[in-house]
Amino acid sequence: MNRRIVLYWVGRIVLLEAGLLLLPLFVGLLYGERSALSFLWSALAAAGVGLLMFFGARPRTRHMFAREGFAIVSMAWILTALIGALPFVISGQIPHYVDAFFETVSGFTTTGASIIPDLTKMDKGILFWRSFTHWIGGMGILVFMMAFLPSRSDRPIHIARAEMPGPTMGKVMPRMQDTAKILYLIYIGMTLVEFILLICGGMGVFDSAIHTFGTAGTGGFGSRPDSIAGYTPFCQWVITVFMLLFGVNFNLYFFLLVKRMGAALKSSELWLYLGTVGAAVAIVTFNVRGMFSTVEETIRHSAFQVSSIITTTGFATTDFNAWPALSKAVLLTLMMLGCCAGSTGGGLKMSRVFILLKTIRNEVRHLLHPRSVTVSRVDGKKLDKEAERGTLSYFAVYMLCFTACFLLVSIDGKSLETNISAVAACFNNIGPGFGDVGPAANYAHYSFFSKIVLSFAMLFGRLEIWPLLLSFSPSMWKR
Amino acid sequence: MNRRIVLYWVGRIVLLEAGLLLLPLFVGLLYGERSALSFLWSALAAAGVGLLMFFGARPRTRHMFAREGFAIVSMAWILTALIGALPFVISGQIPHYVDAFFETVSGFTTTGASIIPDLTKMDKGILFWRSFTHWIGGMGILVFMMAFLPSRSDRPIHIARAEMPGPTMGKVMPRMQDTAKILYLIYIGMTLVEFILLICGGMGVFDSAIHTFGTAGTGGFGSRPDSIAGYTPFCQWVITVFMLLFGVNFNLYFFLLVKRMGAALKSSELWLYLGTVGAAVAIVTFNVRGMFSTVEETIRHSAFQVSSIITTTGFATTDFNAWPALSKAVLLTLMMLGCCAGSTGGGLKMSRVFILLKTIRNEVRHLLHPRSVTVSRVDGKKLDKEAERGTLSYFAVYMLCFTACFLLVSIDGKSLETNISAVAACFNNIGPGFGDVGPAANYAHYSFFSKIVLSFAMLFGRLEIWPLLLSFSPSMWKR
Repeated sequence: MNRRIVLYWVGRIVLLEAGLLLLPLFVGLLYGERSALSFLWSALAAAGVGLLMFFGARPRTRHMFAREGFAIVSMAWILTALIGALPFVISGQIPHYVDAFFETVSGFTTTGASIIPDLTKMDKGILFWRSFTHWIGGMGILVFMMAFLPSRSDRPIHIARAEMPGPTMGKVMPRMQDTAKILYLIYIGMTLVEFILLICGGMGVFDSAIHTFGTAGTGGFGSRPDSIAGYTPFCQWVITVFMLLFGVNFNLYFFLLVKRMGAALKSSELWLYLGTVGAAVAIVTFNVRGMFSTVEETIRHSAFQVSSIITTTGFATTDFNAWPALSKAVLLTLMMLGCCAGSTGGGLKMSRVFILLKTIRNEVRHLLHPRSVTVSRVDGKKLDKEAERGTLSYFAVYMLCFTACFLLVSIDGKSLETNISAVAACFNNIGPGFGDVGPAANYAHYSFFSKIVLSFAMLFGRLEIWPLLLSFSPSMWKR
Repeated sequence: MNRRIVLYWVGRIVLLEAGLLLLPLFVGLLYGERSALSFLWSALAAAGVGLLMFFGARPRTRHMFAREGFAIVSMAWILTALIGALPFVISGQIPHYVDAFFETVSGFTTTGASIIPDLTKMDKGILFWRSFTHWIGGMGILVFMMAFLPSRSDRPIHIARAEMPGPTMGKVMPRMQDTAKILYLIYIGMTLVEFILLICGGMGVFDSAIHTFGTAGTGGFGSRPDSIAGYTPFCQWVITVFMLLFGVNFNLYFFLLVKRMGAALKSSELWLYLGTVGAAVAIVTFNVRGMFSTVEETIRHSAFQVSSIITTTGFATTDFNAWPALSKAVLLTLMMLGCCAGSTGGGLKMSRVFILLKTIRNEVRHLLHPRSVTVSRVDGKKLDKEAERGTLSYFAVYMLCFTACFLLVSIDGKSLETNISAVAACFNNIGPGFGDVGPAANYAHYSFFSKIVLSFAMLFGRLEIWPLLLSFSPSMWKR
């Protein structure tokens, strides 16, 4: 393990955070809030820590393998959350550090689970930072998933491959830096379009920014206690569409950009994703008919909630905790599935679901014709055994971590429904669950211990388990 | 597909059932119950159907592959349940056929989920038959898992191999018929010992028989509305111990019989099983302290419930639905895990859990040292890739079927807790769940549609999914 290069890179990322903390400082000053200064102190702290790491650990060699990559992402995500929590505590808007850490992890991991009891009492600058972490986290995960890992390790690693059975940019754009740049541009471009559309829908500049950040990162932090319920149907539709768009594999946008429409439309992950959304909306709409006055309203709320959950955003236009059992069961299932790989969303990912389904089909064939040789294909390409095994073992470790978190959180004594959905909502980076953590409630009532467990659940889910899990293994840190 | 041989074998099994139906007839006559005659009519019907299949389909060739084996077990399990339900309906003790089918499937699959609202109103003969199905089912599954499948197919099939990474009898006793015979003897011997111990504990002959059947098959049907709560602590301890014993891989008893103690004790599955039981009892005991008056009572109830759930029996000495969240979370996790392969219990099985854990450990190693070659070993033997892949894909299809049943049952509109635990309890052949299907409640309130779904969940779980799933595939039935 090349420890110096790990510290060096984490230092760079913390320095970046110091810079990003100046934006909420500016917003706070604009609204003349006293809490704005907390961002200055936090930025200075981040700069200090970052510079120390950056200069102190300047690496002798740039050699880097998968394990260094794992260490960097794990440390970076935890450290930026530890620092990002400072403004909340310094300003006194979230008095307890554990609460602030939970909220910041929730922000950076684009989860959207909150412990704030009353949003109306929060300063604008603080709210801005809270939602801005979503946007940063969303971009961070895109870079992590598509550019960083495959380029820095000695070969395209397991996860990254299992991640992307669909079209990858690698073939069209071989240089990683160019790929990352194009990613930023697509992400920023889509953010701007949504921002403008929401302003046109009469949402107001500040709220539009907040909700655009929440949509782009598939996070879900808003500025009002009733989430998106109070805005116009137009705004709700805009957010529905953009949640779905940010849940698509960003490689596909890249293909569209280079005018390879055909390649984009051939993605089986995309069709599985759209098909699942369509089916879920149909079932939920039928199930909640009669709860709303018009057909448009029923479809709007169904489509919004389904999109919000499958993309792991977590916005709400209505209290879906009060919906009938079938709709809740559909939403709980969507929570586990998640959206497309290579998007800002969380969950198991559609590409993995697709591989799991293929594996089951192959097993059926194998059992019926034991001597035949079956080859899995995804999008016409042969799926190698490694990727298949990687997906299956990811599924196993996913369920293992899920169960562990579920048992630990159960110590608090809340109901089975609350605990299962809380872990599902955190692990898959969604935000609201059911029961006492439903969209009309929050996570404030959990103990500090559970909040820390749930924070790690969010991190596990966001980093696709392995990097963080490996960081707990002492053998990874050996020189 | 050799259809004639499938019909021929299923016919033989139905004829066997006709014979077995004479035992409850005898019990009913002994108690002078009018309902006894219903067994006679049912036996005659079974004999008719069985003879028709047996003679009508006498096969030209004895050639048999895995697919014929799958078809036989699926058809046999469904048809014996359809016929076994007749006495309940003919006697009028369970008026609706769907209810009777549910109860009989629950019996044969050794689940123990019941739709009978008041056990005290049932005739002795009917109660006897209901519990006797557990005992038959338990023996059936032992034969199916260990003797039938590997011997009849062209090679030891996938499932059976994934099933038994531990010691197998094949090596010591090569001829299948001998193996089956020894299995019967062990099963019958253990049944007799428990029966006698319970009588010594003052349970009464009839009740001792009922509860011994329920323990041996890891079923859980009893004769009283409060399950085992009303019996002496001695009887409760006896049942606890025997539940655990019937949850052990029967191969180990075989090794003990041939005085190969060392081989039996080396089984990693056994230690994982005992370790899980120990840990669960410790956590639950600590969690429910203060709910009972003495330490012995606390440990007794904890040990009883943990054993009852992990072995998928489903007896209860107390209403564990009223226990704190942590205990319920532990029990829900145990529901999914199940006990050892090669036992009468259900669930995912400890051997599979063990392989999943090994796979995760290998993946960690592989990610840390991408170029190293890792070999999984179970009990000193190399675990081949096929078995590993088989386990992983079983896990995937398990979760897929689980989710499908959960969504279908949710249509009824019961709570999330009730639905999840009902599917978990049926799929893993346990019986009682939480909420509205807790140990103090039953499944009567579900709709007929849900009862059919849950019946199939029990069958899927019992037959380890693949055989039944394949039977739905038209390509299996091609000539």
